[in-house]
Amino acid sequence: MRARMFTLLGTDPHSRARYGKLETPHGVVETPVFMPVGTQGSVKGVHPEELRALDAQIILGNTYHLAVRPGMEIMREAGGLHKFANWDKPILTDSGGFQVFSLGKIRKIKEEGVHFQNHVDGSPMFLGPETAMEIQAVLGSDIAMLFDECPPHPCDETYAAQSLDLTLRWARRCRDWIDANQPQTNGKPQLHFGIVQGSSYPELRARSARELVAMGFDGYAVGGVSVGEPEPEMFAAVENSEPHLPADKPRYAMGLGTPPQLIEMVARGIDMFDCVLPTRLARHSTAFTRYGSINLKNSRYTRDYAEIDEDTHPLCRGFSRAYVRHLLKAGEILGLRLISLHNLHFYLSLLSRARAAIKGGVFREFREDFISQYQTHTEPPDS
Amino acid sequence: MRARMFTLLGTDPHSRARYGKLETPHGVVETPVFMPVGTQGSVKGVHPEELRALDAQIILGNTYHLAVRPGMEIMREAGGLHKFANWDKPILTDSGGFQVFSLGKIRKIKEEGVHFQNHVDGSPMFLGPETAMEIQAVLGSDIAMLFDECPPHPCDETYAAQSLDLTLRWARRCRDWIDANQPQTNGKPQLHFGIVQGSSYPELRARSARELVAMGFDGYAVGGVSVGEPEPEMFAAVENSEPHLPADKPRYAMGLGTPPQLIEMVARGIDMFDCVLPTRLARHSTAFTRYGSINLKNSRYTRDYAEIDEDTHPLCRGFSRAYVRHLLKAGEILGLRLISLHNLHFYLSLLSRARAAIKGGVFREFREDFISQYQTHTEPPDS
Repeated sequence: MRARMFTLLGTDPHSRARYGKLETPHGVVETPVFMPVGTQGSVKGVHPEELRALDAQIILGNTYHLAVRPGMEIMREAGGLHKFANWDKPILTDSGGFQVFSLGKIRKIKEEGVHFQNHVDGSPMFLGPETAMEIQAVLGSDIAMLFDECPPHPCDETYAAQSLDLTLRWARRCRDWIDANQPQTNGKPQLHFGIVQGSSYPELRARSARELVAMGFDGYAVGGVSVGEPEPEMFAAVENSEPHLPADKPRYAMGLGTPPQLIEMVARGIDMFDCVLPTRLARHSTAFTRYGSINLKNSRYTRDYAEIDEDTHPLCRGFSRAYVRHLLKAGEILGLRLISLHNLHFYLSLLSRARAAIKGGVFREFREDFISQYQTHTEPPDS
Repeated sequence: MRARMFTLLGTDPHSRARYGKLETPHGVVETPVFMPVGTQGSVKGVHPEELRALDAQIILGNTYHLAVRPGMEIMREAGGLHKFANWDKPILTDSGGFQVFSLGKIRKIKEEGVHFQNHVDGSPMFLGPETAMEIQAVLGSDIAMLFDECPPHPCDETYAAQSLDLTLRWARRCRDWIDANQPQTNGKPQLHFGIVQGSSYPELRARSARELVAMGFDGYAVGGVSVGEPEPEMFAAVENSEPHLPADKPRYAMGLGTPPQLIEMVARGIDMFDCVLPTRLARHSTAFTRYGSINLKNSRYTRDYAEIDEDTHPLCRGFSRAYVRHLLKAGEILGLRLISLHNLHFYLSLLSRARAAIKGGVFREFREDFISQYQTHTEPPDS
């Protein structure tokens, strides 16, 4: 029997929010937690030293992207993703399932897995449960995700049920591969998370969760969310999954979301998040503030000599909005870098403050204050 | 009478190389020194914290670029370039002369200055001796350069002589503007450097130097080099200027050069350098090593797990050539950042080692070793 890897340290009396700690082969992660996304082995625009300065506890890597480029021969020779990317803290890798469906071309879903052409050079590739687990073992991530089919939105119930059946058969094969191979990283057992699917159908979500739990994994994710569905459906998918997941295992909502969505998900019992928004919106000149997001390319900031936000990271201190706007207009990379750092700080500290609020017994107030202050559209269009 | 700003601390017995220290309003600069170029108020791809980590003593800003964008109204409101760019160490600004001639469109050179259209939005602009000095006073640089005409290469002697006469009349007007306005930065007098012109004509170079020295400036630059002339002409331009410059003032060779050229210029009595090569070549995937430059996009580095170079900066340690190549191929900004940091470290430490060698009485050996080891083209074309 394995030692306990997740410790639930406390819960909020007014919601399903909780805080805990997750022990991984490369260190402890305090939850709830935000995981910056390093798709191609680099969190876009950010140096690992900066991630450390931002107190990032764990980052995400993408199996699909890394298998396509640089490819597994190099990842194996390099000694895994930690060494390749010069990052010695925890890493979670997705299984590639989602990307196969969103990026791969001419894909054929078969019982054994998915045949597709990759998006970089069109080469034929194959990902199935065993290959996805093997790749993640080579990457040496601390947390590997099971290989699943992520159905599109909308999706009729018949297809959703068939897709779920396939995902559960694949989960069984992942379980068998893990048991047979017992992959390790940093000399300790790699963790494996199942992914709850079932689209917008409560019974399918419940069945998915129950069957995965019966197989026994180290944590459980809610997948098939943030695929274009309206926000209430996204919340419902989590609400329909979470009650069927064991309290003593971490829960991860994949690929979410806006700052208020993250807090709402914490209130629904989710512990872990990843999202490309902080770095992707930075590339569109957009910075997060507690009052909503602002676009620093707007002419209103031309002569605004305040910092990006009152609450920002020391690495962004001393730079005015006017300066950042100048950098963006002039095409200087530092502008993008400063917003990326600021946005990652915003997301990381948001989850860290949520954790402190749960621990301090004031999560209800924290949630209400944050949601009421945050406006999705504060900023009128630029003149 | 002003206090001495430059102190010549020692000379090399076998060449004209020297080391010294230059006191500026924002701190002391030890020479010989390399100055990273921050054209638009940012050293491309690099955060000021990284410049500090690299031990950059002084950076360069461009009058022309900053006057075009963000414009002087913002530079004035922002409180000058140091505050705007969040950099509290010394800054040298060029006068805009070189850029007017290389970037400006439909330019008309008149006695009062140069009328031109800027390269960003084509707006009509004017730069003359007084405006260039006034702009640099607003930028608050520690060292401001005189406004000059930089003749093209090749240039016949008649035009070169006429151009030099104009540059000397402009120098006189700069001197008068400085005396009348006595610009300060950080509460201390701004320094002003004259620029020796005269193309490839020894007598013109000598006359230019003598007349500028007679007007009296805080330092002297050799301009009109690295404008497309063959390397021997570049060396000759410096050799024909330097003997006419006072030993107790700093000398600056503008816009140079390759690593061996820098060492050769140090041997010819030059103290200060600026060059875009470290960051520009980084954007072309090229890294400097003691054996010459290498292009990290080349397929030979696909499975090269050594670091960028044995001698690199701590911020570049732990990243393999294979990883940097992967980042470059994948279009990840971190690849460009790592090479920029490495190249700036290479240039900064090259000058710092040259200084130590002069001080230690071993500059002749240092020069010979470095030049003989460094190959301009080590690397065969990629297969």
